Amino acid sequence: MKIGIIGATGRTGSALVQEAQARGHEVTAIVRNRTKAEQQFSAATTILAKDVFALTWDDLKDLDVVINAFASRGDGYQHLDLAAKLVTMARNQPQPRLFFILGAASLKQADGTTLLASILKAAANEPWVDTPLQQAHEYEYLQWIHNVNWTAISPQRDFVPGPKTSYHLGKDQVMFNSEGQSTVTTGNLASAVLDEIEHPTHPRERFTVVDN
Amino acid sequence: MKIGIIGATGRTGSALVQEAQARGHEVTAIVRNRTKAEQQFSAATTILAKDVFALTWDDLKDLDVVINAFASRGDGYQHLDLAAKLVTMARNQPQPRLFFILGAASLKQADGTTLLASILKAAANEPWVDTPLQQAHEYEYLQWIHNVNWTAISPQRDFVPGPKTSYHLGKDQVMFNSEGQSTVTTGNLASAVLDEIEHPTHPRERFTVVDN
Repeated sequence: MKIGIIGATGRTGSALVQEAQARGHEVTAIVRNRTKAEQQFSAATTILAKDVFALTWDDLKDLDVVINAFASRGDGYQHLDLAAKLVTMARNQPQPRLFFILGAASLKQADGTTLLASILKAAANEPWVDTPLQQAHEYEYLQWIHNVNWTAISPQRDFVPGPKTSYHLGKDQVMFNSEGQSTVTTGNLASAVLDEIEHPTHPRERFTVVDN
Repeated sequence: MKIGIIGATGRTGSALVQEAQARGHEVTAIVRNRTKAEQQFSAATTILAKDVFALTWDDLKDLDVVINAFASRGDGYQHLDLAAKLVTMARNQPQPRLFFILGAASLKQADGTTLLASILKAAANEPWVDTPLQQAHEYEYLQWIHNVNWTAISPQRDFVPGPKTSYHLGKDQVMFNSEGQSTVTTGNLASAVLDEIEHPTHPRERFTVVDN
């Protein structure tokens, strides 16, 4: 498939590029910095160097899937704005499917409260809190969208650089590996995303993934 | 002030144009149909004929206020998309102030439930329900926005064409006139909007207005 990856040179994005290409897909890396992308990716990678907020429908309409692995640089609201921009362009269109990499904050803990609630309790006045807050809003927003083919994934509390090993899926819960840690590697998350792209089972849903 | 009015030829928009011009403001009518606007408005009115989803920052940045009185033609989601488009453009900008004309569905009834809840109970499967539903989402969305100078107003359950008479304001409640009706005229709503524009008292808040 033709897969566009927004934020392709980032931590999550580069794991997604690697996994998609290992599975034989045609990757378009949507990036801020062409030189960085050219150094990082093989010649088989199409590079679209453009500010995400300048993306047009013509840039995206021939792709089968657009994965949004955008990382804001401290301006958390950009997560919400970019989701709204992509959704607005994709209304009532058969493709591309939109795949959102969310944060973990909207996952639920054993007591039924969200991770976000714990974060807000512990660090309400820290500026960085705005990013998990806005990404939780992004998930609320997505749940209102019924005429776009979207799927979203949340990592776990610890989302760490690391290879593809083995993993299992969940829906809305904080989950734990065999050692009791809520953790997932970038490689495992990327593989779970590509599994879902190749065999869709979560239309207009968010799911999550944890290391085994 | 320089006031842009999206949907200026519509029922709400035309009342807003009339009230703004009566108070001496410079109006830019943002409309789909130039001919209709030229027939409807005085020569003092600047007309910007453009699809709302094609509006750019250059179109809006010199205005003091943009009033969004957009009426979708059955596609309720466009209310949410247009709000997100305007907010995204206005992030961290000192002007224009954004003024949203919402529906009444997000107002609360005496028992604490929203009008929307009653509408969904009575008519969940009617296609028209999507518009009040999406306008309620639009208000939820606006409450997440902290770096844009926005204000919103809801009419009452009955929002009827009619002149400016007299009115009073509320915050989040369904309210009633002296005859026990939850009703407001377009003229009274327009006057309440212009009062707020001239003397801002509801920054990043929604308020409501009812006939006396």
